[in-house]
Amino acid sequence: MTNPPDLPCAELSTATFPKINLTIMQDKSAFCFGIDAVLLSDFARVKNKAQVFDLGSGNGIIPLLMSRTSQASHFTALEIQKEASALASLNVEKNQLEEKIQVVCGDIKDVRSLFPPEAADVVTSNPPYAKANAVRKNPNESKNIARHEILCNLEDVVSAASYLLKSNGSFFMIHRPERLSEIFVMFAKYKLEPKTLQLVQPYSDSAATMILIEGRKNARPEIKILPTLVIYKSQGEYSESVKKIYKNYK
Amino acid sequence: MTNPPDLPCAELSTATFPKINLTIMQDKSAFCFGIDAVLLSDFARVKNKAQVFDLGSGNGIIPLLMSRTSQASHFTALEIQKEASALASLNVEKNQLEEKIQVVCGDIKDVRSLFPPEAADVVTSNPPYAKANAVRKNPNESKNIARHEILCNLEDVVSAASYLLKSNGSFFMIHRPERLSEIFVMFAKYKLEPKTLQLVQPYSDSAATMILIEGRKNARPEIKILPTLVIYKSQGEYSESVKKIYKNYK
Repeated sequence: MTNPPDLPCAELSTATFPKINLTIMQDKSAFCFGIDAVLLSDFARVKNKAQVFDLGSGNGIIPLLMSRTSQASHFTALEIQKEASALASLNVEKNQLEEKIQVVCGDIKDVRSLFPPEAADVVTSNPPYAKANAVRKNPNESKNIARHEILCNLEDVVSAASYLLKSNGSFFMIHRPERLSEIFVMFAKYKLEPKTLQLVQPYSDSAATMILIEGRKNARPEIKILPTLVIYKSQGEYSESVKKIYKNYK
Repeated sequence: MTNPPDLPCAELSTATFPKINLTIMQDKSAFCFGIDAVLLSDFARVKNKAQVFDLGSGNGIIPLLMSRTSQASHFTALEIQKEASALASLNVEKNQLEEKIQVVCGDIKDVRSLFPPEAADVVTSNPPYAKANAVRKNPNESKNIARHEILCNLEDVVSAASYLLKSNGSFFMIHRPERLSEIFVMFAKYKLEPKTLQLVQPYSDSAATMILIEGRKNARPEIKILPTLVIYKSQGEYSESVKKIYKNYK
């Protein structure tokens, strides 16, 4: 495989999603595709002809997946890291999605100068999970930026999503359970009413490790909590619920 | 069974908890014991010699259960409805718990005149779940008061709990999932940091119908989400987790 010009040293691997005719190149030394992206893509409900923005898009996996599985008319993938956004652009080209997905290399904190307000029907984000001051396990800075709130924090993401959303538009986010109370407080601050919450647990008897949440702008209060999604039935075997989700992609 | 003097017309039934040597009389026409009380009693962690307050105590079931299962030194059961608090007193006598549990007939909104601040290590509450303006299904007003926020709302309960708690003391509450975002916002307002959350689902594939939450006063942010508690394995058969809990009571 020839490395793209913007990624001179990257070691690339490929994730394929045959059911939706999608091939995604990812930088093995950076932040690679995990189950998170598929869960968020599956969790997000997008109406026909929706304008969708993905904040902190990495290699573009979320708009790439959703461009195949939803009836949205257009996606904007905002990513601050040059290498990741170059890879996202390459993925868009490779899958001939140039008309559906625009990759923008830019800062979530600059959304107000980059885009008009209320440009989005739906915003998605798989933001950095850990606080900037949490212990950084990785010597690789691009992985740290994807995982830690180094370049943007939760408030930046929530505030950007609220700015971009039309009234009654939805923000779908995947995050860590330990940030849940902060998420609720931040959603309230930026007029995103929590409408749907789903916990994700590795096993039926283990604590949640991820949460999926929908906040709807200016909506009336009432949250629905979906059945907790259990990933594995037993060691190495996906649960029926996850198999059902993956069936749409793999 | 002779009706107690304060309950001239009540039709009483008895719930027994043989494992902990407890018999609880309840008014069948009012609000009867449900699984909620056992789940909350099991969820609440109480240290040795703790001072515990239960807000909206009904027939006293939560302090009654916890007086047998915890090492707390004293419980105060606050209940506004005369009939219910008379029944709570009767249950305390009947189980010879006069030295452990004090029943106070009073209003949650009056905690500031009833009790000194920071009197509690632990506060528990199984408050009315529904908003005052929600459709009232019951012709019986005492049931409505127990179920609807007629005499107190969520803010009254959370604010009273925060007033009563020592710094680092815990408030354990059971509530409905649709109120979750409001609970988080209210906890933040009254300096109760959400520390533990557990969803309760009837079946493994059904939406949550109850939530158990611990807020710790002035604590540092970080919430732990426990494995979702599934009530039934199949129609009419409790799950292993619930059987394990009930084994300590029944």
